[in-house]
Amino acid sequence: MDTALALQARRASSLLRARLARIGGALASLADAHRKTPITGRTLLQAAAPVSFGWKAAVWLSGVTRARDALAQRTSESAVLQFGGANGVLGALGCDAERVAEALARGLELALPATPWHALRDAVARLGAEIGITCGVLAKVGYDVALLMQPEVAEAFEPTAEGRGGSSALPHKRNPVGAMLAREAALRAPGLVATLVNGVAGEHERGLGQWQGQWWTLGDLFGAAGSAADAIIEVVDGASVDVGAMERNLEARSGFVYAEAVSMALAGRLGRRQAQVRIEQVCRAALSNGRSLQDALAADEALVALLPADWRTRLFDPRVMFGAANVMVDRALAAWRTSAES
Amino acid sequence: MDTALALQARRASSLLRARLARIGGALASLADAHRKTPITGRTLLQAAAPVSFGWKAAVWLSGVTRARDALAQRTSESAVLQFGGANGVLGALGCDAERVAEALARGLELALPATPWHALRDAVARLGAEIGITCGVLAKVGYDVALLMQPEVAEAFEPTAEGRGGSSALPHKRNPVGAMLAREAALRAPGLVATLVNGVAGEHERGLGQWQGQWWTLGDLFGAAGSAADAIIEVVDGASVDVGAMERNLEARSGFVYAEAVSMALAGRLGRRQAQVRIEQVCRAALSNGRSLQDALAADEALVALLPADWRTRLFDPRVMFGAANVMVDRALAAWRTSAES
Amino acid sequence: MDTALALQARRASSLLRARLARIGGALASLADAHRKTPITGRTLLQAAAPVSFGWKAAVWLSGVTRARDALAQRTSESAVLQFGGANGVLGALGCDAERVAEALARGLELALPATPWHALRDAVARLGAEIGITCGVLAKVGYDVALLMQPEVAEAFEPTAEGRGGSSALPHKRNPVGAMLAREAALRAPGLVATLVNGVAGEHERGLGQWQGQWWTLGDLFGAAGSAADAIIEVVDGASVDVGAMERNLEARSGFVYAEAVSMALAGRLGRRQAQVRIEQVCRAALSNGRSLQDALAADEALVALLPADWRTRLFDPRVMFGAANVMVDRALAAWRTSAES
Amino acid sequence: MDTALALQARRASSLLRARLARIGGALASLADAHRKTPITGRTLLQAAAPVSFGWKAAVWLSGVTRARDALAQRTSESAVLQFGGANGVLGALGCDAERVAEALARGLELALPATPWHALRDAVARLGAEIGITCGVLAKVGYDVALLMQPEVAEAFEPTAEGRGGSSALPHKRNPVGAMLAREAALRAPGLVATLVNGVAGEHERGLGQWQGQWWTLGDLFGAAGSAADAIIEVVDGASVDVGAMERNLEARSGFVYAEAVSMALAGRLGRRQAQVRIEQVCRAALSNGRSLQDALAADEALVALLPADWRTRLFDPRVMFGAANVMVDRALAAWRTSAES
Repeated sequence: MDTALALQARRASSLLRARLARIGGALASLADAHRKTPITGRTLLQAAAPVSFGWKAAVWLSGVTRARDALAQRTSESAVLQFGGANGVLGALGCDAERVAEALARGLELALPATPWHALRDAVARLGAEIGITCGVLAKVGYDVALLMQPEVAEAFEPTAEGRGGSSALPHKRNPVGAMLAREAALRAPGLVATLVNGVAGEHERGLGQWQGQWWTLGDLFGAAGSAADAIIEVVDGASVDVGAMERNLEARSGFVYAEAVSMALAGRLGRRQAQVRIEQVCRAALSNGRSLQDALAADEALVALLPADWRTRLFDPRVMFGAANVMVDRALAAWRTSAES
Repeated sequence: MDTALALQARRASSLLRARLARIGGALASLADAHRKTPITGRTLLQAAAPVSFGWKAAVWLSGVTRARDALAQRTSESAVLQFGGANGVLGALGCDAERVAEALARGLELALPATPWHALRDAVARLGAEIGITCGVLAKVGYDVALLMQPEVAEAFEPTAEGRGGSSALPHKRNPVGAMLAREAALRAPGLVATLVNGVAGEHERGLGQWQGQWWTLGDLFGAAGSAADAIIEVVDGASVDVGAMERNLEARSGFVYAEAVSMALAGRLGRRQAQVRIEQVCRAALSNGRSLQDALAADEALVALLPADWRTRLFDPRVMFGAANVMVDRALAAWRTSAES
Repeated sequence: MDTALALQARRASSLLRARLARIGGALASLADAHRKTPITGRTLLQAAAPVSFGWKAAVWLSGVTRARDALAQRTSESAVLQFGGANGVLGALGCDAERVAEALARGLELALPATPWHALRDAVARLGAEIGITCGVLAKVGYDVALLMQPEVAEAFEPTAEGRGGSSALPHKRNPVGAMLAREAALRAPGLVATLVNGVAGEHERGLGQWQGQWWTLGDLFGAAGSAADAIIEVVDGASVDVGAMERNLEARSGFVYAEAVSMALAGRLGRRQAQVRIEQVCRAALSNGRSLQDALAADEALVALLPADWRTRLFDPRVMFGAANVMVDRALAAWRTSAES
Repeated sequence: MDTALALQARRASSLLRARLARIGGALASLADAHRKTPITGRTLLQAAAPVSFGWKAAVWLSGVTRARDALAQRTSESAVLQFGGANGVLGALGCDAERVAEALARGLELALPATPWHALRDAVARLGAEIGITCGVLAKVGYDVALLMQPEVAEAFEPTAEGRGGSSALPHKRNPVGAMLAREAALRAPGLVATLVNGVAGEHERGLGQWQGQWWTLGDLFGAAGSAADAIIEVVDGASVDVGAMERNLEARSGFVYAEAVSMALAGRLGRRQAQVRIEQVCRAALSNGRSLQDALAADEALVALLPADWRTRLFDPRVMFGAANVMVDRALAAWRTSAES
């Protein structure tokens, strides 16, 4: 029965990897296409300095790449022959034991492990943990999109389609149903993984209760991840991105998300610490007066004198703030291509 | 802070691997030394056909080998630089961003990942899952020994020492304190792993609550596994094995654990199905008369006529039942040596 | 040691209930004060028909009421004497056993359970589950506020204070640090609860590893809930509510959140099904033209003829949509008062 | 849909309570019938001073009583109406909202909660936690019996029946299949409970993913507990108890399990501390000489002089060691009767 579990796991794992490949492909396109699309960076759900939407997609892609690679490795480690007879040593087969085991492994194209794993099920737990982690990676993509899709943010959207995410009572609603399914999986995954980790150690040669339920639990995990992957395929394949809204939301932050850029620009003249203190004062004043950072800065002639003449356009430009984003996108795309070829 | 987490994880992981190396070494010795020591195979806590104690140790060893190898891999994957500044793209460093990141990675001897992992923490969850699984592997060793140490079984024992596992009220008691600590870790591990799997996906560039608690949870997991490993080092280094008790307990099963061997011996003459049916009848009769299988067989002249003349010594010999045990021990030792050299 | 656990649990539980009392008090005030404050109802993070902010607070309050009541009950059930001597039956005390047990229970003001619970620890798991659930209730309050506090929503805020939730790099940031701590607790709680449920059944009279770790795990749960409660006390005591922003965000939905109200108003004339179909058509047309629902309706003379003359003010008024909100607030306040008196 | 969940939960809970009633009844009979049956007390799987088998059954019974009572309470708290319309306030029903809600609650015989619980699901988590804890209580009964059923212990047994727990390869085997099913449930329960605790807090008026999966998870928990309860009904209804084996195993401990009794008897003459030190010395000497405690004592004339003349029969009698066992059995039976009547 455990060998049947291994065979099913290998097949389910292969299907899941194919789905991750499709998601990775779509994310790679988004990452490349939106290298220069500015979007508000958001930490603790508050506005931080801008990033590029392509870089956001590259972060998602990196997670999918790691999950796909790890899944392949865990599967090859755990989908191995379990063949030990009544007590593990194949005594009933006498001297033929080893030959039969080898033939069976060859026939099923499963590796032959050093010893049977029936009562020491660490490899099943490793595979299950990876599937659970994959749910988390998919939920990251989905939930970020759902947050961007809030009507007050409205920067990116899951696709619409007849019967998809609508509401009869509220016909304007466009529900993030893909994100919902991915989150559902990710909320369930930790407990299911715990179950498999709880069943690593069976008593002696066959434990009391560890292995009977793993079939269901592993099936539930594959089901959750498969449902999440299908949902996220729809999201990334059909996502619509509102570049204008991303820019408008950035602008609506009254320049404050550029505070660090201004501070860095001043650091060469004032020293880093002093630059930071000064900008903090300007920010506070601006906040209490309801002014933008630009206007507050312009009113402080001493500070403006230390800045380049074109500071309004040069420092308050989201693209200036991208730092290493582009190099990271390159690396994420390269890692994905390496993975996709394997 | 995440990079500090990575550095601490790398160090804790290296200490844990060193402990696993010591446990593996002791188990390899037990596996090799007890290749010919028969012990009752036990499935669902009932007596099954005999195995060798060396093979039991080889099963434990295989688990330790896999855990030690996986731990190395997970550590190298998860103990990577996390360096992204306020929002992940290192905007404050401008064009220097990438150069600084590379220098930092080199200085700390940490790999530089494609993208920051602050808000997509799958690698931390992978490492944590492996530590939790390691607790299960260690608990398998400890609990099997604790079951063998029950006074009614009394086949193997944790070491005694002044102040170790004694009881003032019951001075004869020799408590399996090593097993207790390993089980304590293994009972706690699934929940702690669930916590890390629950924190894979953070909102946008910095999540709300996922990363703050992981430091503690990962610390708890390393603490649990370290405590379990220390405890099992004592168990395997100082274990005493009562070979005589193992044989006596086997003999006390009135020959029934050899039913399969007798059935296989008859299969050549009666066919497999018929042999099984006949032996089942003999077993039932023996059980209801309180006789041993040997005596019940001897009374069935028709059956005895189909068996070799020396059936009493040939079939009722535990070593005949070892099947592929020895090959498995060889494989487990070879896998361990490969691992230990890495 | 288990009795010490019971005593500590009773004390920690009492402290936690005091914190919940304070949170409940603040939420009750919010619920009562904002009965008539409209806010966008939000389902799946999308705009639905309006609710009152007081009603939102009443929902939070109901959870706090239930948690506080359940905590009292679980504590009185689990904080009971554990006194059984070496094996549970108090044999060493001979005929005095029962008398001593009763005196001890009286002295510690702990109930005397029917039998010792050392090896059957369901009551500890019940208490732990309740503390974990309390973390979830507190995280609901915190996370809802954090979502309202997003700069694009900006309807309610955690308090600001020197050194609270600020950022040196981004001086304008006002981080939801209370929500963060509550979420941190809620993300950790499920795994910790799993650990206690995993330790319900100990072998025979003293189990191998179930009880040793519960002290820490229960301590971690109380620590998590206490940290979450302290954080939410700050949030609810100092929350600022921007009633104007709540109204502006509602208005920005172009009337679509009133689609159900219009549909209900038409149902008397057209039948429910037909009314819904017609409004759905109007909504779609409005969405594709970028018009408000009001304007799209006004253009459909046949429909307008079926509506009351003052439909623009009557149907597009959030307060009309409150349904049973006020009765629910009353019930929640009444339940809270009953709980607070106990 | 949540109300359907509540209705199903109420029904499943009622079925589970009926099963627990049957188990409680059988355990109450065992507890009463075996008040005077001595059995080895076992702590950390080692022999401790004797207890009565009736008392062991009373400990199990106490757990079942608590679980059955808690299940009733959690069910009445969680199986309450969920009725709030699209956003929770029943706006579409206008002024009829409250009247309809009350009528619906009356019709379904469900309590009407203060506020809807759709997005704050603490009550579902409370019910789920209790079902998970019930699995642990049932596993305690099953696993204790499975340990007693080990062939080297052989003190109590699950029933045999055609096709129940047999093995074709090993026809003598009598597998603890009831214990296996209860353990399977108890190993899965902690993770499933974690899932429900993970879904307490939904975003705003309808959360993203919390509620969709709870239907399955709660169903899995009821399924696990139901399977465990059915299995344990068979175990306790048909358990066979070998009173002779219990006594023989006690006697095989060479008197050491009475060390505390001897020590207490000497305490009046030597002081408690001194008595303990002396007995510890005698025990060690006996252990290293392979003698029984009785024989070792008899050889120490100075000690024997301090003991009553009939010490061999008086002190080395398991029934003398029962302490408060009988009072505890009375209490457990009384608590059960109170519960069974409710």
